[in-house]
Amino acid sequence: MSEADDFLKVAHAARAAATELAPLPRAAKDAALRAIADALVRRAAEIVEGNAADVAAAREAGTAEAMIDRLRLDEKRVAAIADAVRQVADLPDPVGEVVRGSTLPNGLELRQVRVPLGVVGMIYEGRPNVTVDAAALCLKSGNAALLRGSSSAHGSNTVLVAIMQEALAGTEVPAGAVQLVPGVTRESVTHLMRARGLVDVLIPRGGASLINSVVEGALVPVIETGVGNCHVYVDADADLDLALEILVNAKVQRPSVCNAAETLLVHAGVAGEFLPAALARLAKEGVTVHADDRVAGYAAEAGAAESVVPATEEDFGKEYLSLDIAAAVVDSLEDAVAHIRRYGSAHTESIVTRSQRAARRFVALVDSAAVAVNASTRFTDGGEFGFGAEIGISTQKLHARGPMGLAELTSTKWIYTGEGHLRTATGTVIPPTGR
Amino acid sequence: MSEADDFLKVAHAARAAATELAPLPRAAKDAALRAIADALVRRAAEIVEGNAADVAAAREAGTAEAMIDRLRLDEKRVAAIADAVRQVADLPDPVGEVVRGSTLPNGLELRQVRVPLGVVGMIYEGRPNVTVDAAALCLKSGNAALLRGSSSAHGSNTVLVAIMQEALAGTEVPAGAVQLVPGVTRESVTHLMRARGLVDVLIPRGGASLINSVVEGALVPVIETGVGNCHVYVDADADLDLALEILVNAKVQRPSVCNAAETLLVHAGVAGEFLPAALARLAKEGVTVHADDRVAGYAAEAGAAESVVPATEEDFGKEYLSLDIAAAVVDSLEDAVAHIRRYGSAHTESIVTRSQRAARRFVALVDSAAVAVNASTRFTDGGEFGFGAEIGISTQKLHARGPMGLAELTSTKWIYTGEGHLRTATGTVIPPTGR
Repeated sequence: MSEADDFLKVAHAARAAATELAPLPRAAKDAALRAIADALVRRAAEIVEGNAADVAAAREAGTAEAMIDRLRLDEKRVAAIADAVRQVADLPDPVGEVVRGSTLPNGLELRQVRVPLGVVGMIYEGRPNVTVDAAALCLKSGNAALLRGSSSAHGSNTVLVAIMQEALAGTEVPAGAVQLVPGVTRESVTHLMRARGLVDVLIPRGGASLINSVVEGALVPVIETGVGNCHVYVDADADLDLALEILVNAKVQRPSVCNAAETLLVHAGVAGEFLPAALARLAKEGVTVHADDRVAGYAAEAGAAESVVPATEEDFGKEYLSLDIAAAVVDSLEDAVAHIRRYGSAHTESIVTRSQRAARRFVALVDSAAVAVNASTRFTDGGEFGFGAEIGISTQKLHARGPMGLAELTSTKWIYTGEGHLRTATGTVIPPTGR
Repeated sequence: MSEADDFLKVAHAARAAATELAPLPRAAKDAALRAIADALVRRAAEIVEGNAADVAAAREAGTAEAMIDRLRLDEKRVAAIADAVRQVADLPDPVGEVVRGSTLPNGLELRQVRVPLGVVGMIYEGRPNVTVDAAALCLKSGNAALLRGSSSAHGSNTVLVAIMQEALAGTEVPAGAVQLVPGVTRESVTHLMRARGLVDVLIPRGGASLINSVVEGALVPVIETGVGNCHVYVDADADLDLALEILVNAKVQRPSVCNAAETLLVHAGVAGEFLPAALARLAKEGVTVHADDRVAGYAAEAGAAESVVPATEEDFGKEYLSLDIAAAVVDSLEDAVAHIRRYGSAHTESIVTRSQRAARRFVALVDSAAVAVNASTRFTDGGEFGFGAEIGISTQKLHARGPMGLAELTSTKWIYTGEGHLRTATGTVIPPTGR
């Protein structure tokens, strides 16, 4: 069989499983999730063994140790993955939630109720725990998961999916509800992107190039996630001590994640007071500042000449994910907003200000998934927002924007119930009921 | 200038206008809508004159009189269009609505607030009133409208958009917020479909072939609308008199709309009692029944031999939009659901039953935008649902499903406000505020 045939086989299996899974009550789904968690712990040795082959291949390919560490699974990490599945089981079921409801003037009872999307495709890089996390979130929300992980973790993912399927076989959830896309070629990604009618939504998780190639190549609906060129704007009315703490937290607390700050904008009115202290502190924290001319002018005074480099136009559009930050001075809040519109990725932008008016204007004018006032950008996160879990952070405007939890993995269905309601040109008519 | 340049010019103008329009309060938007309504009434003669050229061209092209009537505008119709704009002004503003909100355990105040999508592209066929309706709904929800109507109405649309733009020029809403895509070639549609970064969502309204070509060719996000192969399922426990009234209402009250019934499914247990009466009544109503063998077996008994024709496989997938209906006998509710899954368009399906259990199962198993119980399919409509207006009926699962009102033309933005909240590995830290 060709890879295309193999793909169609698993996609059809996922579609069939989704139909069976959708109407199952919470108890059936939670029992299945707990069966998966138990199986992962019980069979941890198999998982570690399957993972060892991926690790060996990565080492042979000269992969950096930091990357290899992200790939590696041991029994403790497997236990943590299983715990995360149990936490998903503990979350409320989004399916069946009545989103809106009313009795219409004609007596029809109208309800808008959450239902599963169907088959959720995921394309992701990096760590094999995502395979289990994504499967658990999809199952809890009543969706079948069609997973395409990184080729470097294919051995681990194969074992993990086999164990999940075998665990499901003893539950009410069909085993076919978790599927790994066969093969590790680029074509296997293409099959997934083009599977119109078989995949209800495709969620790419990873770097900008992965996400762009999916958005451009996909024929199925896509939710863009996670590219974050987040800005911290220090307003003319900022508490500058607070601004410095927020800037440093947003940049250095965890530089490798999408809600870390990548650009600093400083109002000209406070640049002279703020930037010498800020550049000195960033230097101390090991941050390289890609500075426009006005920022660079304070480097000597800050004693930070070595950590300040001239910014190129491109630098302002970058998601560094490292101890680098672009920085510019702006003449007004409006100029800060214009800069963000031009270079930003519409993820999260923070304003530091004591001015109620400035906060209000910044919130109104910035068109991003999240806007923070006097808070670090690092709080844009499903866990922090109280969702209990997160499948990604949407930076698009349709369907879901910002952190996506279980509710964002659902659609809705309208249900209306009458007693023979007919629509006429002049209004509703209800015939006398018969027999 | 080329048509592509012309398109980019209006698309950029729409984008710029959207940025200005988004933060405007309701009062400014309502005043602009009322200015548009006044201008339409005041300049009705110009509109009728512009429309006359379209009507003359249609007549010359041999267009059917019914189509020409749909195209024609007179002063009374213009007044009705203006009234519809005033009704949109009277609706609540969806922008700024707090969808969810809470104070997080760390004290951050979190709000999810409705915001405009930005630039809404519309591709539509048929009547010129859609040009004004769509513009009004977009403006009310804070969006710029980029409109591509039927080439047969291009003269009318040009006058209508010019009048709307001139009316806006005297208001706070930028005149560029309503734009007509230049040109009437197929390429002008392609420009709109490919305008990634300039168009936030594209809504095609029209027949299945228009919608399919947009879904397949678009690089911008699309919301599929309105293809309706709606089913009426007469359950074994149906009140058969009621079932007949619902069937007839769903089929004949307005056959040309997407929520009209196109397929009848009858449980085998009541086929012998229901179908003779149903076929006789449908014949009387002028409906041609495309029947499977089991339905056709009752044609003679019903005295309806002339109005019953054999159904092809294709007939069950058709949206007739005429006095035609496909009909089949099914052996169970589950078979009815399977038939709907196979042939349906996931718009609206109705079950007629006295059984609570059957109603519950049908609602749970049918995966459509709307499911009706003991009610005509004709109620799936933004007006009937109390939305006050409708831009289309989505048959997709992402973003919006079913009738789309003003709220469905918005996205959301997360706003969180703190007093210097920083995220650390162990929890939130708030530094003592300075100065």
